Amino acid sequence: MRTLEVNSSQWTYNVYIGPDLRFEVSKYLPNSYDKILIVTDRHVEQLGYLNEVISDLQKHAKQVYSFTVPAGEESKKLDVFEQLQTDAIKKGLDRKSLIVALGGGVVGDLTGFVAATFMRGIDYIQVPTTILAHDSSVGGKVAINHSLGKNLIGAFHAPKGVIYDLSTIKSLPLVEKRSGFAEVIKHGLIADKNMLNQLMEHVQTLETINQKILEDALYNGIKIKAHIVEQDEKEKGIRSHLNFGHTLGHAIEAEAGYGSITHGEAVAIGMLFALQVSESHLSLSFSNNRFKNWLKQLAYPLHMVKDLQIESLIERMKVDKKNQSGQIRMVLLKDVGMPELYTINENRLLSELKTFINEVIE
Amino acid sequence: MRTLEVNSSQWTYNVYIGPDLRFEVSKYLPNSYDKILIVTDRHVEQLGYLNEVISDLQKHAKQVYSFTVPAGEESKKLDVFEQLQTDAIKKGLDRKSLIVALGGGVVGDLTGFVAATFMRGIDYIQVPTTILAHDSSVGGKVAINHSLGKNLIGAFHAPKGVIYDLSTIKSLPLVEKRSGFAEVIKHGLIADKNMLNQLMEHVQTLETINQKILEDALYNGIKIKAHIVEQDEKEKGIRSHLNFGHTLGHAIEAEAGYGSITHGEAVAIGMLFALQVSESHLSLSFSNNRFKNWLKQLAYPLHMVKDLQIESLIERMKVDKKNQSGQIRMVLLKDVGMPELYTINENRLLSELKTFINEVIE
Repeated sequence: MRTLEVNSSQWTYNVYIGPDLRFEVSKYLPNSYDKILIVTDRHVEQLGYLNEVISDLQKHAKQVYSFTVPAGEESKKLDVFEQLQTDAIKKGLDRKSLIVALGGGVVGDLTGFVAATFMRGIDYIQVPTTILAHDSSVGGKVAINHSLGKNLIGAFHAPKGVIYDLSTIKSLPLVEKRSGFAEVIKHGLIADKNMLNQLMEHVQTLETINQKILEDALYNGIKIKAHIVEQDEKEKGIRSHLNFGHTLGHAIEAEAGYGSITHGEAVAIGMLFALQVSESHLSLSFSNNRFKNWLKQLAYPLHMVKDLQIESLIERMKVDKKNQSGQIRMVLLKDVGMPELYTINENRLLSELKTFINEVIE
Repeated sequence: MRTLEVNSSQWTYNVYIGPDLRFEVSKYLPNSYDKILIVTDRHVEQLGYLNEVISDLQKHAKQVYSFTVPAGEESKKLDVFEQLQTDAIKKGLDRKSLIVALGGGVVGDLTGFVAATFMRGIDYIQVPTTILAHDSSVGGKVAINHSLGKNLIGAFHAPKGVIYDLSTIKSLPLVEKRSGFAEVIKHGLIADKNMLNQLMEHVQTLETINQKILEDALYNGIKIKAHIVEQDEKEKGIRSHLNFGHTLGHAIEAEAGYGSITHGEAVAIGMLFALQVSESHLSLSFSNNRFKNWLKQLAYPLHMVKDLQIESLIERMKVDKKNQSGQIRMVLLKDVGMPELYTINENRLLSELKTFINEVIE
């Protein structure tokens, strides 16, 4: 097991990364709690993880409850948020209780936002079960979606700990591996050329990823993320670099309808687009074509963007938390490992997007 | 005009208190903003204050928008919260925009919670227009209600400033004066014996309160509040003292149905009850009878509590943010100015409440 320490402005917490940690979550709790509410989704419950975590936590707390939400992005919305608040009240949770987010990014973001706002904020821990959540479980960003845009309602609320059981990843469906792997690639692109090269060289399919390579990449990814959020927790500066690929990515997700494409698949397309814009605006020298072919080989559904309305995507990109004074801002790369937040004119963005959809994506 | 400085963990902000400040809100903004959204209620709008503030702010910002919610506690709920989020998105607000809460405690709490969660938190200022809001506008506690309890969904999010136009108080309906005045009394009870004595001596009706006495009491009240929240922003200790009278008060509000009794009227009843419990549990020496008669003289509707179910009130008191491990906790007084958080057994509470409703309240 490996441990990383993350300093947030609220408190310092540990990220524990290793196999089979779900059987010993109680060992890593920073405080004692009388009442614990585990939030998970149907899929994670069906895999048996919920019962395993309950069994373990019952050693720690007198009252261990659970609440299962439907799997998928559709649960990251206001009415599920309200159901969870109601459930927490009815179960008598108070400011000394703990909420556990057991699942992927959706469960983590939703649960974290409930913890951030229940009685004005109580403790929660993240127990990620996906590759994607190696990214979302660290850093305290929590949110739900608005029908007009992703993650628009949320808070900064650091977890009290992240307990990452790498064994759970093995049960991931291929499409979820693909989704999560996009954020791993992102961490390479924005911060670690070696890591990126390693991945491009050794990962030719997502059906069977070498466990050692994946684990190292996840550990490095979390380290990169932790390093950035420690410097800029509230996203006033460099934290926005983590948004690489997300400007178009979020627009694609919202435009296609949440759930019809995974977050990471949309981000992968967004990254390819950001690389193209980086080439034309910042003279990035990078083999976009090789990268595109690698994404295709890993079966990222690049072509799906052809079915979307270009103008609608632009409108979606205008509703982005990075924007200021109505100007669209994207994270671009000067080089691999050198991201920069860049304000881009709407007309140029439109023409870039047309080129991207009509010429780059075949 | 008088100014008080408040140090929050997020930033330091000023409270400006004086006549006619609504005509010069722009003078007191801590930053420049391109876009401003003013949130107010129908009643404040009808008094003309909204237009006055808009006129002034248009000197400051290019785009000044407003959103009016229905007046009253019913607006402090999730669906109005959602409407405001939608409106802010549609108007293109971003992380550099400002939200202004123009109104009483309901508008302040609701708007503050929108600001706390819109894009994970943007700037807002409080422009209180009621006596009650002298209390709620300072300290960064923001929240909406859940049908099972008051202020259960919320955050700590400090305003960037509080601009308190004392002239707006003159237009308050009597019942609102009564509501707000209860929090003024509370500040005297928990922190300032002289202030309380002054009020009991000089305020015999709320229809015409001596302006100098009221203004001094509001200034002192804000000072008391600021002093407490600076020491314990997140309510881990002494901030809970500000909840004096609120344990039963909140239960009465929820049980009677939000809007059927004002917050302060319910708190006044709650304070009288807390004084009784303080006498029997902490041997408080205080003329409860004189205090009760004073409340009656000021027309606080003490008798209304007789229409409520005692058992239901106890159930409501169990859903309180101060509680821990299912134990009900109330703020009591050892003496005027000496509050203490006290865990009270449910059976004793039940018997105290029976005595209170059947014997103390005539």
